[in-house]
Amino acid sequence: MKCIFSFSILLLTILFVACNNKQPETTKEQKTELVFPKGDIITNNNFTGTAWLKWLVLNDSIFNCPVGNVTFEPGARTNWHKHPGGQILLITGGKGYYQERGKNAILAKKGNVILIQPDVEHWHGASSNEQFSHIAINTNVQNGKTIWFEPIPDEYYNSLKEH
Amino acid sequence: MKCIFSFSILLLTILFVACNNKQPETTKEQKTELVFPKGDIITNNNFTGTAWLKWLVLNDSIFNCPVGNVTFEPGARTNWHKHPGGQILLITGGKGYYQERGKNAILAKKGNVILIQPDVEHWHGASSNEQFSHIAINTNVQNGKTIWFEPIPDEYYNSLKEH
Repeated sequence: MKCIFSFSILLLTILFVACNNKQPETTKEQKTELVFPKGDIITNNNFTGTAWLKWLVLNDSIFNCPVGNVTFEPGARTNWHKHPGGQILLITGGKGYYQERGKNAILAKKGNVILIQPDVEHWHGASSNEQFSHIAINTNVQNGKTIWFEPIPDEYYNSLKEH
Repeated sequence: MKCIFSFSILLLTILFVACNNKQPETTKEQKTELVFPKGDIITNNNFTGTAWLKWLVLNDSIFNCPVGNVTFEPGARTNWHKHPGGQILLITGGKGYYQERGKNAILAKKGNVILIQPDVEHWHGASSNEQFSHIAINTNVQNGKTIWFEPIPDEYYNSLKEH
């Protein structure tokens, strides 16, 4: 009887280990969200933290519509900036913020679409604890290049409450 | 001894059932690919088979850039057509075809980006055995509306070889 008990414990241990030996959820999620490449780390001074960019469509005078896949690590965000021709953001993963000058920051997440009117100053980026990715469609670029301003200070960024 | 053997078989059966009681792979994939809604079935005569459309950005005179999420069931495809302002396709799932008039059909799949020059006659759609989805970015729509032509005959479509 003691032997049966020991043997049962052994098999139940195997059952427990086998059923819990799964791929971590985060790895799985990152893999399934990678429809388009992550690209390269952005090295200019218009961002705080680590962000990645892969151009899917380059700028030209036929489409006037460069398209980029942007991924922000947690805590990463753009400086304030504006687009003379406007911009469309298609949020493809994670959770982040979008804010226009003079308004409250809003929480943005996978599946949201954000229309940024021409010449409206704004910033966007990840939340502090989650990655954030979007496709950025730059419209009417024949109207002029993006104009960049100051960074989002840590003090303000860290005060943002997630909903 | 016989008792230990029977008990082992019972526990191993539990182990087997518990570890194989997973969600089917296809369901999981469909769920992870649904970043944007599938929308409604397209009911006009410009398509063969069943295709779905969700407008992510409506047409307006500020962005000049309506954006749609299009899903083709296996075998579904557009008629021949052209865009006076051009179009960009970001392939987000599955496998399908893209063809320009006078050229061979090319196979398109998840992660591909297709630039359709203004006024080039073309069609796109799913392969015969797999769903196909893309984000369609309609550029420079101030240059005019999409012009539609004849459908892709079954005989020709069924002759296409998948690479």
